[in-house]
Amino acid sequence: MSSNLFTIPEHQSDEEVIELLAEGRELRIERIISRGHASPPGFWYDQELDEWVALLQGEARVRFENGITRRLQAGDYLFLPARLRHRVESTSTEPPCVWLAVHGSFPEQVRAASREGNHEV
Amino acid sequence: MSSNLFTIPEHQSDEEVIELLAEGRELRIERIISRGHASPPGFWYDQELDEWVALLQGEARVRFENGITRRLQAGDYLFLPARLRHRVESTSTEPPCVWLAVHGSFPEQVRAASREGNHEV
Repeated sequence: MSSNLFTIPEHQSDEEVIELLAEGRELRIERIISRGHASPPGFWYDQELDEWVALLQGEARVRFENGITRRLQAGDYLFLPARLRHRVESTSTEPPCVWLAVHGSFPEQVRAASREGNHEV
Repeated sequence: MSSNLFTIPEHQSDEEVIELLAEGRELRIERIISRGHASPPGFWYDQELDEWVALLQGEARVRFENGITRRLQAGDYLFLPARLRHRVESTSTEPPCVWLAVHGSFPEQVRAASREGNHEV
């Protein structure tokens, strides 16, 4: 089986496409394809696991509850500690956004983020 | 702090560059930059953890002990169960190879790989 992160399914629905690429105990690697999708109004992600996420293609904006917005370009990555509320404000359509997300437990990163008092690191 | 997977350090040594991006218990996310590097003659990776690895940029060849070689292009990814001996036969120089590796424990993937009797999946 050959698999490629940049190959976009042709018959994509109107929804974001989330593919589970690998799974362990409290550990998930996902590819997410977004084409102009954004989190619904008033929606915040509030996750039980920490998340390390990279935008591999496209452009996107992620907003945090403190009002800070991060613009992401291809290759940019973020660490999102568990329970850090965030939402996707916008994603590009051409090209579609390809995200790679690793959901797991990263205690060192959480400590580093609190030391800096800046969860948007 | 802004971080980008496709930003290559200017003053790169002759060695591969391995950066630890996030770490948990039995869990590591690394970026590896290879420019024409290959595993030394006779060397085989023989790792304690499973590895999910994607080539994000460049071209590379990975060889397995059974003689099978996989050619990888940007976006291709592989699952390498723990103890599956493998080596990097070649990596491109222009552009340099950018790998994203997640070392962890992925029991489902290991079972799927053995069901198919094909660890090069």
